[in-house]
Amino acid sequence: MRVINFNAGPAGLPLPALERARDEFIDFQGSGMSILEHSHRGKEYEGVHDEAIALLTRLLGLTDSHQILFLQGGASLQFAMVPMNFLPPGGSADYILTGTWSEKALDEAKVVGSPRVAGSSIGPDKRYTRIPRQAELELDPKAAYVHLTSNNTIFGTQWHAWPQVGAIPLVADMSSDFLWRPTDVSRFAFIYAGAQKNIGPSGVTVVIVRKDFMAKGRKDLPKILKYSTFAENNSLYNTPPTFAIYLMRNVLSWIDKQGGLTAMEKRNTAKAELLYGALDRMAGFYTAPVEKAARSTMNVVFRLPTEALDEEFVTAAKKARMVGLKGHRSAGGIRVSTYNAVSLENVQALVSFMESFAKSKG
Amino acid sequence: MRVINFNAGPAGLPLPALERARDEFIDFQGSGMSILEHSHRGKEYEGVHDEAIALLTRLLGLTDSHQILFLQGGASLQFAMVPMNFLPPGGSADYILTGTWSEKALDEAKVVGSPRVAGSSIGPDKRYTRIPRQAELELDPKAAYVHLTSNNTIFGTQWHAWPQVGAIPLVADMSSDFLWRPTDVSRFAFIYAGAQKNIGPSGVTVVIVRKDFMAKGRKDLPKILKYSTFAENNSLYNTPPTFAIYLMRNVLSWIDKQGGLTAMEKRNTAKAELLYGALDRMAGFYTAPVEKAARSTMNVVFRLPTEALDEEFVTAAKKARMVGLKGHRSAGGIRVSTYNAVSLENVQALVSFMESFAKSKG
Repeated sequence: MRVINFNAGPAGLPLPALERARDEFIDFQGSGMSILEHSHRGKEYEGVHDEAIALLTRLLGLTDSHQILFLQGGASLQFAMVPMNFLPPGGSADYILTGTWSEKALDEAKVVGSPRVAGSSIGPDKRYTRIPRQAELELDPKAAYVHLTSNNTIFGTQWHAWPQVGAIPLVADMSSDFLWRPTDVSRFAFIYAGAQKNIGPSGVTVVIVRKDFMAKGRKDLPKILKYSTFAENNSLYNTPPTFAIYLMRNVLSWIDKQGGLTAMEKRNTAKAELLYGALDRMAGFYTAPVEKAARSTMNVVFRLPTEALDEEFVTAAKKARMVGLKGHRSAGGIRVSTYNAVSLENVQALVSFMESFAKSKG
Repeated sequence: MRVINFNAGPAGLPLPALERARDEFIDFQGSGMSILEHSHRGKEYEGVHDEAIALLTRLLGLTDSHQILFLQGGASLQFAMVPMNFLPPGGSADYILTGTWSEKALDEAKVVGSPRVAGSSIGPDKRYTRIPRQAELELDPKAAYVHLTSNNTIFGTQWHAWPQVGAIPLVADMSSDFLWRPTDVSRFAFIYAGAQKNIGPSGVTVVIVRKDFMAKGRKDLPKILKYSTFAENNSLYNTPPTFAIYLMRNVLSWIDKQGGLTAMEKRNTAKAELLYGALDRMAGFYTAPVEKAARSTMNVVFRLPTEALDEEFVTAAKKARMVGLKGHRSAGGIRVSTYNAVSLENVQALVSFMESFAKSKG
């Protein structure tokens, strides 16, 4: 029996996407071999690769101004590659800090060049419970780019309106909320997202880059670290992670069949309203630390009256077949990750459990 | 029905390794979720991760002097990371050229620093049909390392005895013949291998590094591009490609059950003898261009009397359910990749086909 999976990533995947993979695992489309065994230069794999790109293009309504790339190495490699490609010697780039991942992105940029902190919502206790307001941002009009993290898995905050950055190219790490709703990609010069939250397994990273921005990238880098190499070769310069892309294709196809990103937004908003509604209703027992305007629809964090109760909650939930609820080790408490694959029924089950637990312990 | 898969990579995988993955694809060890959906920090995935390391350690007889790392990005990322980490500013490194992949490794090193060519077996027609002799190597005793490619998938050559390099650290790209037989790892400072030939799917690269060599690596690199980051975190600094490592574990476990690397050597040698024996016997029809002492046990290349016959051969073989025989686009002719997963019976079937084909066309 399937458990209800609230993992932060790698995370639960839509069952139809997994079943499709299992059913053709040994024999892909009657070819007599697994998709894992197909050459990345053969028509079978290329069909999957191109379909994944076509699905992303359609779901996001991409135009010819941007190109989709598939890389390896997770968002962590992007933390380094973005400044390597786009932070010119002697130049500067602006970073907006909203949590651990944006700090990590900044740290890698510091090794490459001289980034600036253009805004931060860090609290006195080193925790982030909100998103900086526009008035708090001090942007450098000469910055090579502005970098932000659209959703923060650890502290459970999310940008709900993009900052005004004028003519500065906007770069976003969307790893943990990519495709949670329709997104106006034209606002971004560069988007990257590790797949293992909303759209697939670990092992593949989606990049969406504006072509004129990419053209400004440094030329004096190893080929494998230049975005232009991937762009010129349809992400087939070297062997791609074929199975990760295949499974992502299955998930994208599932999203498409559900009604695309409008349907995802409806579903994710309903889940978040249900869960935050329950937290607000039971505010005497559960504490949600994040400022309401910055609450993440993807990672809902809260605490119980004591750490011992946090632990008891996680253990009792596991017995009720709900897993992945322990908060990140650096934040503590409870974290409920409700990515695209999590259904409203899954969240309803959790809310019922929370009500019973609060009643029995409150 | 399974085809006989002679793909050069991604390549055929052992059926038991695939069936094991399929059978537990939706529910890994009764956990109620797929291995793809497990957190990389949970005990289920960590068990797989550590078992893969333990199997590699046992199969290769590794001692504490070396450490195993799992990276992403394929051998192509290693072409860049090796010089970034180990080619110091103002220093030099020696590259031995034996084919396209060693040329690519050299090209990336040139972007990073000043590598030297210490030997090359390139022919007047830009093809490589042999491995340089020891006397042809001009090694720089001050080189930071010597780099070689142990097996050349495109031209079908292979090092059968390692060069004498004195005290210079030896670095090898073993992507296409890793674990084909027992290997004395103590001779190497650094080994890397994309998994998608002999040991698994694309998406994971195995690195085996001598710890004292790694300690000399540059410190002024982004964290994600330093081997020490992976070493200090058991390759769990960021989310690893969990499914690729899982499936590699299945393949390593299969190799182990077959009798380990001694059994692989026996099997691979028998396959190569059978195939090269057939080529030599039918030398009037099939031409094997590689010098006998340098013939690859992994990629057997040959040509028919005309390009039209090459093509006819590939088409007829496909009808007989044998696929992946077309030579690399830069080399032409026929290429038979006979990695670990290819059985002696598979090669016997091919040899029978070759005999019939030669008889009907010769």
